[in-house]
Amino acid sequence: MKKVYIYLLSCTLSVSALAQDKNITASQGKVKLEFTTDAQGHPQYSVSFNQQAIVKPSRLGIKLLNDTGFDEHLQVINTETINVDELWKPVWGEVSVIRNHYQQLTVHLKQQDAPGRLLDIIFRVFDDGVGFRYEFPKQPNLRYFTVTDELTQFALTGDHKTFWIPGDYDSNEYSYTTSKLSEVDAWVPYKAATDIAVRVVPDQYAVQTPLMMKTAGGLYINIHEAALVNYTSMQLHVDRASYTLSANLVPDAVGNKAYMAAPCKTPWRTIIVSDRAADILSSKLILNLNEPSKIQDPSYIKPMKFVGVWWEMQTGKSTWNYANSINDVDASGALKPSGKHGANTANVKHYIDFAAKNGIGGVLVEGWNRGWEEWFGNWTEHVFDFATPYPDFDVKELSSYAAQKGVKMIMHNETSGSATDYERQMDTAFRFMNKFGYPAVKTGYVGKIIPRGEHHDGQWMVEHYIRVAQKSADHQVMLDAHEPVRPTGLSRTYPNWMASEAGRGNEYNAFSNGNNPEHETIMPFTRLMGGPMDYTPGIFKLKGYAAGVPDRQVHTTLAKQLALYVTMYSPLQMAADLTENYEQHMDAFQFIKDVAVDWDDTKIIEAEPGDYVTIARKEKGAANWFIGSVTDENGRKAVIPLSFLDKGKKYIATIYADADNADWKINPEAYQIHTYLVNAGTKLNITLAKGGGAAISIKPATSNVKGLKMYK
Amino acid sequence: MKKVYIYLLSCTLSVSALAQDKNITASQGKVKLEFTTDAQGHPQYSVSFNQQAIVKPSRLGIKLLNDTGFDEHLQVINTETINVDELWKPVWGEVSVIRNHYQQLTVHLKQQDAPGRLLDIIFRVFDDGVGFRYEFPKQPNLRYFTVTDELTQFALTGDHKTFWIPGDYDSNEYSYTTSKLSEVDAWVPYKAATDIAVRVVPDQYAVQTPLMMKTAGGLYINIHEAALVNYTSMQLHVDRASYTLSANLVPDAVGNKAYMAAPCKTPWRTIIVSDRAADILSSKLILNLNEPSKIQDPSYIKPMKFVGVWWEMQTGKSTWNYANSINDVDASGALKPSGKHGANTANVKHYIDFAAKNGIGGVLVEGWNRGWEEWFGNWTEHVFDFATPYPDFDVKELSSYAAQKGVKMIMHNETSGSATDYERQMDTAFRFMNKFGYPAVKTGYVGKIIPRGEHHDGQWMVEHYIRVAQKSADHQVMLDAHEPVRPTGLSRTYPNWMASEAGRGNEYNAFSNGNNPEHETIMPFTRLMGGPMDYTPGIFKLKGYAAGVPDRQVHTTLAKQLALYVTMYSPLQMAADLTENYEQHMDAFQFIKDVAVDWDDTKIIEAEPGDYVTIARKEKGAANWFIGSVTDENGRKAVIPLSFLDKGKKYIATIYADADNADWKINPEAYQIHTYLVNAGTKLNITLAKGGGAAISIKPATSNVKGLKMYK
Repeated sequence: MKKVYIYLLSCTLSVSALAQDKNITASQGKVKLEFTTDAQGHPQYSVSFNQQAIVKPSRLGIKLLNDTGFDEHLQVINTETINVDELWKPVWGEVSVIRNHYQQLTVHLKQQDAPGRLLDIIFRVFDDGVGFRYEFPKQPNLRYFTVTDELTQFALTGDHKTFWIPGDYDSNEYSYTTSKLSEVDAWVPYKAATDIAVRVVPDQYAVQTPLMMKTAGGLYINIHEAALVNYTSMQLHVDRASYTLSANLVPDAVGNKAYMAAPCKTPWRTIIVSDRAADILSSKLILNLNEPSKIQDPSYIKPMKFVGVWWEMQTGKSTWNYANSINDVDASGALKPSGKHGANTANVKHYIDFAAKNGIGGVLVEGWNRGWEEWFGNWTEHVFDFATPYPDFDVKELSSYAAQKGVKMIMHNETSGSATDYERQMDTAFRFMNKFGYPAVKTGYVGKIIPRGEHHDGQWMVEHYIRVAQKSADHQVMLDAHEPVRPTGLSRTYPNWMASEAGRGNEYNAFSNGNNPEHETIMPFTRLMGGPMDYTPGIFKLKGYAAGVPDRQVHTTLAKQLALYVTMYSPLQMAADLTENYEQHMDAFQFIKDVAVDWDDTKIIEAEPGDYVTIARKEKGAANWFIGSVTDENGRKAVIPLSFLDKGKKYIATIYADADNADWKINPEAYQIHTYLVNAGTKLNITLAKGGGAAISIKPATSNVKGLKMYK
Repeated sequence: MKKVYIYLLSCTLSVSALAQDKNITASQGKVKLEFTTDAQGHPQYSVSFNQQAIVKPSRLGIKLLNDTGFDEHLQVINTETINVDELWKPVWGEVSVIRNHYQQLTVHLKQQDAPGRLLDIIFRVFDDGVGFRYEFPKQPNLRYFTVTDELTQFALTGDHKTFWIPGDYDSNEYSYTTSKLSEVDAWVPYKAATDIAVRVVPDQYAVQTPLMMKTAGGLYINIHEAALVNYTSMQLHVDRASYTLSANLVPDAVGNKAYMAAPCKTPWRTIIVSDRAADILSSKLILNLNEPSKIQDPSYIKPMKFVGVWWEMQTGKSTWNYANSINDVDASGALKPSGKHGANTANVKHYIDFAAKNGIGGVLVEGWNRGWEEWFGNWTEHVFDFATPYPDFDVKELSSYAAQKGVKMIMHNETSGSATDYERQMDTAFRFMNKFGYPAVKTGYVGKIIPRGEHHDGQWMVEHYIRVAQKSADHQVMLDAHEPVRPTGLSRTYPNWMASEAGRGNEYNAFSNGNNPEHETIMPFTRLMGGPMDYTPGIFKLKGYAAGVPDRQVHTTLAKQLALYVTMYSPLQMAADLTENYEQHMDAFQFIKDVAVDWDDTKIIEAEPGDYVTIARKEKGAANWFIGSVTDENGRKAVIPLSFLDKGKKYIATIYADADNADWKINPEAYQIHTYLVNAGTKLNITLAKGGGAAISIKPATSNVKGLKMYK
C-alpha cells in the first residue's frame, strides 16, 4: 500500500479546565461524537448521526488485574483535535484508492487518586461512523499490566432489529439469527449447532461482532473492531432490557483477558452508521483504522481464483486420509491405501489440467500430508507433519507439472487447533512451500486450541495468526486462514493475509444442513465487514452431491452461486465444485473464468441485510464490470442502472440469471444466459428466483458485435 | 550407551484362573512384590524387604476423563514373568558399567464390564527395590484418552521420619523439612518461602519426590519415578493418619493430568529400599528403568568443569542487565550502559584467562543477550532474544579468544518461563551456538510458565524439556536445564542432557537466607536420586560477599565446598565463585583443578540422610580417587578406610580439611591441607567442623615422593 497524499487540515491542542469535562466533541459530516466524564469520573461517550442519537452516553474504561481505581475518578487533563484527509492505495481491494477522512479527538485522562495513572482515549470521527481506542501512554506507574475487563458500552436507543450469531470463543460458523435485541438468546443457536464441533458460549446473552442492526427509524448500525493486534477479541453482552451492549472480552486459559506493556493501545471499537444499508457495505472505516502495509515488496501478492481437491472430500466422494485407519498397515508397518484418497497424483493432475485449460490460477490440495487418519477431536499436540506427503502424492512431480502448465499450487496446513505444534514446524513448512513453489497457503484450526485452555479468539491465538501472517510474508507466501478469529481489517497491514474463513462458509452445504437462503445477504453486513472471506462459492451440482445424504441440497440457485463471486468479496476465490460438475455447465462456468478478483471500483447498487445485495465492481486495470445480485428465500426483481459505465460507450453484457422456473428448493440448477449491448443509460431488470441470484459480466463492445441486441 | 550383554534367564507365561487373582508375586534378592485384586476388582500391590512389609497392600489404577469403570472390576487375564541380568555402559556417570538385574512381572488386566478395556501393569523387582508402570496396550476401545487421576498409593507401615519439600507444581527450590509423616504440612514451608518467586502448592499435605524416609526399624525407603516422558509429574499426597501416600498428578491449564494415545505407558513409580542408607545412594534402579541412549554419536558429550560470569550478579557485584532501565536510552533510542553489566567483553576475557590458566574447561556467561532490563515477573511472552548480544558483548571476538585459549564457551538461554517463545526461537538459538562454537547451553525457566496456566512440572513442560534436549542433541550441544521438572533418570536416554538444577542450589546462599548446613546431606537422598544437579559448588568467600547484606554467609566451611564436587554428583560442575576469591586460596583451588567430573567407580563410604555423606570416586580412565565428606550442623569424625585402592600400591593423598578451629558460622574459611602417602590399608580419620567437610585427592605415588610421610 502506498499513501498518496495527506492534508493535515488543522491541529489544535486545548487544555480544558479541570472540573469541566463536559461537551468535548468531534464531528465529521453528519456524525458527531461527544465525550464527558460522569460524577464518579467514569469516561463516557455518545454518538449521533444527523442529530439523531445512535449511542447514548455510554461507559468507557479498562479494569486491570490486582488494581483498583483505574476505571474511575479519571479527569481530563487536556484534549487534542486534528483533521486528516488522505488517500491511500491498497495492494488489492474493492477499490483502488481509499479516502481516509476524519476528525480525531484525543482525550488525555489522569487518575485523580494515586498513583495518578494516565489513559488516553482516541476518537476518530468519519463521515460514516466512529472509531475509538484506549491508549496507555508511557508513564512512571504503568508498565506491564493485565486487563481483566473492558468497560466499553454501547447504549443503544431502541430495540433494534439485529443480525447476530452467538458470542462463541471458538467459532464464528453459526447461521445468523434475526431478532430484536430484546430477544437475543445465544444459547438457542448454540445448543442447536451440533454441526459445529468446538463451541464455547459461556454468556447466554453474548453476540459476536461485526454486529449488524437496523433501527425502527431506518438507520443502519454496525459495531465491530479494527486492528485487533496484541489484545483479545471483543464480543458484546446484550442487556435485553436497556438495549445496552457491553464489551465481553474473550479470556485466556486462566481467565485473564489481555497482557499488555505500556506504551500500548487496544484495537479500535467501530460504529458505522448510515441511513442507507449500501453505505455500510461501502464503508472503509475499518480498513482506515488499520496501520499501513508492513510489506516492503508486495510483488508476490497476486489475487487469484483456484480449484481444489476439497469439495470431493466434503461431499464424501474421496477422503483426506490415505488409509482407512491408522491400524491398516502392511507387514513393514506402512499405511495401506484405502483407494479413496483424494490427494493422489493422478487426481491432482486432473485438477491442474482443468485449471490450466480454463485460466484458473491455482489448485488447492487438502489431505496431501500425513496425519489425517486420526486428525480430529483428540486434543493431541502433534498430529500433522507439514513436510511429508502421503506416498501417493508426488510433490516434486506435481510441482513441476503445475509449473509447466502455468498453474500455482496452493499449500494446505491444517493444524487441528494445535497452534504450538504448528509454530514449531512453521519454519520447515514454509521452507517446504518455497522449495516446491507454492505461492499461497490455506491454514486450518479445526479443533480445540493447544495451548490448552486458550481459545480461537483469545489474545494468544490473535497473536498466533499474526505470527503466521508475518512468517508467510517472510517467505513471500499468501495466506488464507480458516477457523481463525474474524478479521478486523488487518489485510491492510498484512496484505499477504488475503482472506480468512472465520464464518459459516459454503462448506456447511456439504456436510451439514447448510446455509439459509438469506445467509449470503447477511454475511456482507457482518462477517465481511472485517475483511475478505474464503466462502468457496461456485457449487453447480446443487442436489444429490452428498454421499449417503440424497436429500441434501445447497440453498441457492446456480445463478446465485455465480453472483457470490461479486457479492462475497475476496482476492482469493475458489471455484469449489468438482470439475465434472463444471463440465456439465461450461456456459455458466464462463462467468467464473471471466470474473475478476481485484477491483478498481465498487458500487453497492442496492442492499438490505437479510433480504438482498446487488454489487457492481470494475476489474482492476481493465474496463470490464461484473455484477452480482443475490436475494433471500423470496424472489425479487433487481433493478440495476448501469450509470457507472463510461458515457457514450457500448458494452456487451452477459447475464447469467435464474431460469424463469428456477427455485432454490425445487429447481436450483435452472439458469439462462443472455447477451445484450448496454450503455450507461441502460437499466437492467433482472428477476431473481427464490433463493436466487444473477451474475453479469460487462465488457467494452468491440466492433464485432453484429447480431447483438441492445438491452431494453 | 552400549548394552554389554543380556542374560534372559527365563520367560514364563501363565494364564491364571480368572477368579484367582491372588498371590501373584515376583522377587529379587530380599525384595518381594505381591500383586492381587480386591473384591471390587481394584488392582493392588505390596512390597516387602527381607520379609518386612515396606508397602502394605495399596491401590493401583488410572481414572480417565468422561469414563467410568476403568479403575475397578479389573480382572487378571494372564501374567508373564521374565528375568533380566545385563550390563550396560553409560556415556558418563558415577560408574562405568551398570548392572540391570531384575525379575519382571507383567499383569494383564481386563475390565469385566463393557467395553472390556485392557490395562497392563509391569513390575520390575530389583535387589534394591521395585519399579512399576501402567501400560495401555493397543486395543479396539482405547485410543486417545485423558488421565484425570492416578490412583497409585503407597500404604506405608508407620510414621516414618521423612525428608520432604512441598508438592509444588512450579518449584523444587525449598529447604528440606525433616519430620514424621504425620507431621507433614506443606503450607508451612510454602508460606515461609518468600525467596521462591513462583510457587503453587494447592494441597496442604502434598510432598515432592524423590521422597526419602527412614523407618523406626532402621530401613531406608525412597519413592520417586523414572522415565517421566509424555506424562505429568507425580507428587505424593500424605494421609497423615494412615501413613498412606497417594499419587498427586500435576494438572494442566484446564485441570487435566495427561493426554495419552494407546499404546502407551506411564513413567515408572519407584521404591528403593535398604537397611543401609549408602545403598540408596548407590542404587541404579532409576537409571535402569530408563530407555537406552537415543544419541547415536555421543562423541561431543564431554563432562567438564566451568567458571562463569554469574556469582558476581547473584551477589550484586554486577548485573545481568546492560542498562539500569529500559527507559535509559540515548538520543538514537539505544540503551545506555549502566557501567555495571557483568557480561562485557573484557570481564569475560578475564574469566577465559582464568579458566585457561587453571585447566577449567568452560566459561558460562549469563546476561549476554538482550532482554534483561525487564525480564522477570511480567508473564510476558517475548522477553529475550537468543541471538542478539548486548553491545558490550563481542560474541565473535570472545568465541575466537576462547578457542585460542582452549576454553569452551557455555551459552545461557533464560526463558523467563516463556517456553512457547523459546520454542519459536530454538532453531535460531542453536544455530547461533553452533556458529560461535558453544558446545553447551544452560537454560532457565524463572517465572510463571507460558503457555499460561501450565506448570513447570506438568505434561506440557515435561515434553518441552525433552524437546529442548532433542533439539540440543540435533545440534550436538550439551544441556544443563535450570528450573525444569526434577529429573527421573532421563540422562540415560538423553546423555547430552547432562545436568539440571530443579532443586535448591548454592545460589540461595547468595540472594536469600541460604541453605541449612544439613542441606547437602539430604540432597543426595532426594533431588539427586533422579539425576545430576548443577548445584554450583566452590564458594570460597563465605562471608561478606553479598552487596548490602553484610551478615549474609554461606552455611558451610570452605573445605565442605570442595567436598561437594564429589558428594553432589554432576558431569558439569561449576567453580562458582569469583576468580579473585579463588586467587586468595590457590592452594585450596588445586582440588577443584584436580577433581574429576566423570567416574569409573563410586563407593558410598558412609551416609545418613540429614547427617553426613562420604563418597569416594575413581576418575574415569585414570587411577586417581577423589573423596568428599560432608556433615550437617554438627561436627564429626569421618572414618574412611581406603580399602578400595589397589592392593600393594602407594598413593599420595592430599587432604583438604577444615582447620581445627573452623566452624561454618564463625570461622568458615579456615582450612588445612596435608599430604601423605596412603595405601589400601590406610584408614583416614578426618575431623569435620560444624557445617564442615573434607575433600581428598588420591593419586598413585610416583618415585618422586621423598619427604612424604605415611598417613597413620
